[in-house]
Amino acid sequence: MTSASLAEDHHVRRDPLALASRMDAIQPFQVMEIARRAAELEAAGSRVVHLEIGQPDFGAPQPVLDAAFAALGRDPMGYSAALGKPALRKAIAHFYRERHGCEVGADRILITAGASGALVLAMGTLVEAGDEVLMPDPCYPCNRHFVRMFGGEVRSVPVGDAQRYQLTADDVARHWTRRTRGVLLATPANPTGTTIPVGELRRIIAAVRERGGWCLVDEIYGGLVYDGPPTTALSLADDILVVNSFSKYFGMTGWRLGWLVAPASLVQAIERLAQNAFICVSVPAQHAALAAFQPETLAIYESRRRELQRRRDYLVPALRELGFRVPLVPEGSFYIYAGCEALSPNSEHLAWSLLQKAGVAVTPGCDFGAHEAARHVRFAYTRSLEDLEEGVERIRRYLGA
Amino acid sequence: MTSASLAEDHHVRRDPLALASRMDAIQPFQVMEIARRAAELEAAGSRVVHLEIGQPDFGAPQPVLDAAFAALGRDPMGYSAALGKPALRKAIAHFYRERHGCEVGADRILITAGASGALVLAMGTLVEAGDEVLMPDPCYPCNRHFVRMFGGEVRSVPVGDAQRYQLTADDVARHWTRRTRGVLLATPANPTGTTIPVGELRRIIAAVRERGGWCLVDEIYGGLVYDGPPTTALSLADDILVVNSFSKYFGMTGWRLGWLVAPASLVQAIERLAQNAFICVSVPAQHAALAAFQPETLAIYESRRRELQRRRDYLVPALRELGFRVPLVPEGSFYIYAGCEALSPNSEHLAWSLLQKAGVAVTPGCDFGAHEAARHVRFAYTRSLEDLEEGVERIRRYLGA
Repeated sequence: MTSASLAEDHHVRRDPLALASRMDAIQPFQVMEIARRAAELEAAGSRVVHLEIGQPDFGAPQPVLDAAFAALGRDPMGYSAALGKPALRKAIAHFYRERHGCEVGADRILITAGASGALVLAMGTLVEAGDEVLMPDPCYPCNRHFVRMFGGEVRSVPVGDAQRYQLTADDVARHWTRRTRGVLLATPANPTGTTIPVGELRRIIAAVRERGGWCLVDEIYGGLVYDGPPTTALSLADDILVVNSFSKYFGMTGWRLGWLVAPASLVQAIERLAQNAFICVSVPAQHAALAAFQPETLAIYESRRRELQRRRDYLVPALRELGFRVPLVPEGSFYIYAGCEALSPNSEHLAWSLLQKAGVAVTPGCDFGAHEAARHVRFAYTRSLEDLEEGVERIRRYLGA
Repeated sequence: MTSASLAEDHHVRRDPLALASRMDAIQPFQVMEIARRAAELEAAGSRVVHLEIGQPDFGAPQPVLDAAFAALGRDPMGYSAALGKPALRKAIAHFYRERHGCEVGADRILITAGASGALVLAMGTLVEAGDEVLMPDPCYPCNRHFVRMFGGEVRSVPVGDAQRYQLTADDVARHWTRRTRGVLLATPANPTGTTIPVGELRRIIAAVRERGGWCLVDEIYGGLVYDGPPTTALSLADDILVVNSFSKYFGMTGWRLGWLVAPASLVQAIERLAQNAFICVSVPAQHAALAAFQPETLAIYESRRRELQRRRDYLVPALRELGFRVPLVPEGSFYIYAGCEALSPNSEHLAWSLLQKAGVAVTPGCDFGAHEAARHVRFAYTRSLEDLEEGVERIRRYLGA
């Protein structure tokens, strides 16, 4: 029987559980393997210093927990509106006004299941199969997959320290093709911690606008900047999309809560997709987050930010002294993307070696892209200064051996 | 300048925020408009009886709330594993063993953000652009969109009361084409409340397997059956996908928690997609849900199930007496899909009329498909018997007028 006649017979046999082709490009993160191995070592009684994880050691502050307690005793926790509780959307609008002097209507602020949920909704609404989206390499790895999930293609633009590991308006001009539809930026960025200077960001937005495309700016580390006041791209334009999150600055990683600011013309479409794809976002988390904007909670966040700055200011020179290349002091987030070419020809090998021989977990560059990935590792300063000091001392001994 | 030369110029202008074509098919639910209008009427001082909402009036039981309280005081609520807390996965495996006598390995049970999250992951992993998926019409409307989100096409099979509003193995044989890859079923179903008899379900699974396709069975109302013991398709096969949820039987709608049971060969791929698309599921909800399987909590769920049965047993004859056509007593869920052709030529018009003139909110059939949609409305018995009686009395007066 030929395959054609099989098809005629409507009994085509192939692997019933064959994966969709989008799955080919989605690889597991190396850091997950490293974290798994670190847990094994710890279970066997070894000490591991964790410099691999993008999760601050703080957790939600007490007023946020108190708000969750109060709500659980009061609210039946039914579905919320698909775009989130109106009070939370208003609280975020107020936050933009107070912190940034920036008017963002609550009706443009959509509550999502973390920045991840925001990116699913934004890409699901905008990306047509075959569309191309520009983003820097290195970048947060999932960003590529949100585009691929919807049949889009990623055009990764290699960026190095000469351009602060960030896209420029020149890059947009150089890499834009007739299939390009948008640009995905992050400031401060993961894994490099660098920000896009306001002037350059303005030029990028103009270059994209001129080409009839959209700009999405990931500001999930926007509250964690150390060398100047926090900024938002929403001060520059209202035809862009901005993603934010309660995970990082607000210390609510596991709660899965974030938000998307969308141009007014997109809100209804995103609402339809959100209704269908998610119904709504976890309501206990929405109640808790309302307390994040109270003055006493914001004071806690500011003291945490200063603590993170102390960690950065310790770790950057310490890594340089160990022989890592850190050409720029990262202005934000809680990451340092360190060149390790003087120490090892292969960052993945170095990361495994540091774990096995020094008990220090770091993330190899390959998790963030292809461009010079083998020459970089990412350090997260999400643990205490004491942990950082111990990690540095362990690496020093390992390198001296 | 021709459009070709514009393209050459790499400055193609079109609407920068044009929606992806998948958005064309995603329409808002009518019930959202009805709920919005109902809220307006209530705000203006009118009384509305809510028979439109698929959310029980119970909320999470006290032991679940207590577990959330305890966890919030103890756990920093960091990210969990992408597939969920191991303890919760094991508790669900135990539940399958105790309730259904069915061995389902915890490693095949993946925690998701409601059944919605499970469907995003399942369709994202399996559906290739152009693939066709069979499902009944009427059905839960979002099911169509999970397929379309990933470029798949929906082949809706009209089903009526003669086949209990469910797909049959004959339907699978009749509608399968060379592009068909899978079948999406629900038992009990929304909006009809009917179940698929075990023998027919076994035949469907065999028919799909024979054609090299996959079966996904939505069992989110599986705990809510009234005329016999609960069943699960996992007793019949382990090469199928089963979706379940803490929303309905477990009373945790707004928490957004569910699970997916996948064939072992798919688990790693789904984990990769889950890591990238969601990171993890809201951790406070995962902690709380651990208490759902305690004996005292299960006793609460059983008493709620009996209460829902009392409501069904009141509402079915009451609707028949009013002139609605209810040819089958629905065995499960908390819905009645009632023919209204004797009362109105257009169910959407009837739904709006009932709201405006009788103060009763119901959902028109058009929210669930096209097949005889204008001849049906859905009643949800998610409110108290007193409310149901008041709703029936209001409809009686309206029809008598």
